Amino acid sequence: MTRTILESASKTVTIGFDEPFCVIGERINPTGRKKLAAELEAGDFSTVEKDALEQVACGAAVLDINAGVVYNSNPNPNETEPPLMRRIVELVQGLVDTPLCIDSSVPGALEAGLEVAKGRPLVNSVTGEEERLELVLPLIKKYNVPVVAISNDDTGISEDPEVRFAVAKKIVERAADFGIPAHDIVVDPLVMPVGAMATAGRQVFELVRKLRDELGVNTTCGASNISFGLPHRHGINAAFLPMAIASGMTSAIMNPVRQVEMEAIKAANLLMNADPNGGEWIGFSRVIDAVAEGATFPDAARAAAAAGGTRGGRRRRRG
Amino acid sequence: MTRTILESASKTVTIGFDEPFCVIGERINPTGRKKLAAELEAGDFSTVEKDALEQVACGAAVLDINAGVVYNSNPNPNETEPPLMRRIVELVQGLVDTPLCIDSSVPGALEAGLEVAKGRPLVNSVTGEEERLELVLPLIKKYNVPVVAISNDDTGISEDPEVRFAVAKKIVERAADFGIPAHDIVVDPLVMPVGAMATAGRQVFELVRKLRDELGVNTTCGASNISFGLPHRHGINAAFLPMAIASGMTSAIMNPVRQVEMEAIKAANLLMNADPNGGEWIGFSRVIDAVAEGATFPDAARAAAAAGGTRGGRRRRRG
Repeated sequence: MTRTILESASKTVTIGFDEPFCVIGERINPTGRKKLAAELEAGDFSTVEKDALEQVACGAAVLDINAGVVYNSNPNPNETEPPLMRRIVELVQGLVDTPLCIDSSVPGALEAGLEVAKGRPLVNSVTGEEERLELVLPLIKKYNVPVVAISNDDTGISEDPEVRFAVAKKIVERAADFGIPAHDIVVDPLVMPVGAMATAGRQVFELVRKLRDELGVNTTCGASNISFGLPHRHGINAAFLPMAIASGMTSAIMNPVRQVEMEAIKAANLLMNADPNGGEWIGFSRVIDAVAEGATFPDAARAAAAAGGTRGGRRRRRG
Repeated sequence: MTRTILESASKTVTIGFDEPFCVIGERINPTGRKKLAAELEAGDFSTVEKDALEQVACGAAVLDINAGVVYNSNPNPNETEPPLMRRIVELVQGLVDTPLCIDSSVPGALEAGLEVAKGRPLVNSVTGEEERLELVLPLIKKYNVPVVAISNDDTGISEDPEVRFAVAKKIVERAADFGIPAHDIVVDPLVMPVGAMATAGRQVFELVRKLRDELGVNTTCGASNISFGLPHRHGINAAFLPMAIASGMTSAIMNPVRQVEMEAIKAANLLMNADPNGGEWIGFSRVIDAVAEGATFPDAARAAAAAGGTRGGRRRRRG
């Protein structure tokens, strides 16, 4: 069985075919969040702290850390990202005990994050591009960590799923040349918007199954991309995630502070026999009840977590 | 490609791997509905009329008709069901143009329904039990209609999916002996409650895939059984249906007058490339909006249907 092991200083998270779906919280990322970028430039980390705590309360098993700001005072990310990555990683691992995902296109920022991250973080990401392979794989080997492999290469993103499969296979083979095992590669088969490409959903479901059956790798994706440009995106996402899970997808990089998507994942875990005795579902159902009574989802999730988590809740129910 | 063709007097519905998921409305069934049973005994068909119209407005492509009452005045279903089945079939096909599914465990009621149903109704059901095979298959051949094949036999319902697959295979082979082709068999692999059997979901997903790949048959199920006994059943159903669809399930016998489940199916159709240009999803998103503004789901669905259906809605959007 393919098991990708992630660790913080005190906690282990396993991505695997028989594990609960691994939710990687995407919120700590200033890309497209001007207010957050300005706060970070001013040395204000309050939003990062809030995002870390809230995502974990809502059910993120791993937190993605992206420090990709473009400061007004210094537009060179090679200079600004590494120290900011270091600072955020240290801050977040002082606040929560979930493993981290070090996310950057700047190799210096990846290494800065790896230097300070405790345990065994995930790295996001390598691609099939020659330059990225040669820059990132040695870091993965040096720090003995798992990595997200995105299936595009120097020719771009192919619309042909067979080409994307071939790129993933190439990355797994190149990683093996560096002594990196396949179970430390988490392939992102690339999710296209179904509004732009009608076959986008089917493509991903078939690719995930093939990646699992033929390469034996875990998989991840930027889940919300599937619904880009369409109305009621959460409804589409909430069907996409269970369908991807039934096809063998084992993790996603996503916003966990959304009840609809998290409910779909909790139900899918139950249906994949990854929720022993239904304890997680029964605990989550109390969060749904609290939201129906007027609480916000993060507040309801936080209250459930503070009450001993969903499993604790189940034990109380039995007593 | 496996295509199961259902017809009313004026409308064709195809169940198939590349078709939108076929929702078979389950509401017209007095089993467990004491009030409806009493109304039918008193000759009051107003609830049947309401259920027929409401289910079609909400998105049912086929209506199941079950006349399984036990009258206070006559407890013998062999006497009461056939005339009641005839009456309800005639009533419903006068009201709506969807194909019907003639549902009874009383052979005389199946034949009564088949005699009066126009077009090509589905029959629900045959099992692997010898007596049922010998009673039902000749009717299927005589009327040249498709049939739901439930994968239990004289030994009961096996918890082993391999046994359930073998029962389905036996029914397909026996049907072939009668000259009934596999594309007229819609297999129900039997959905167990996941609260009682933790593997119930995975079992169904694997069975559906195998039934499709190895027997080439369409499939159906009583979808809501999956969540029996658990809290927030609609959340579980709304994940189960997309997962079953991604695994190859092509229809379900279910209550279509539930927004959560119907939204999951509409999104799954979009993601399976069975919703050209997203027209159905965009139309349904207006139903979601109307419900958010205070309408009931049936009223919002009815209004959308009266406005020319969801595709009509999309055309307006373009204009």
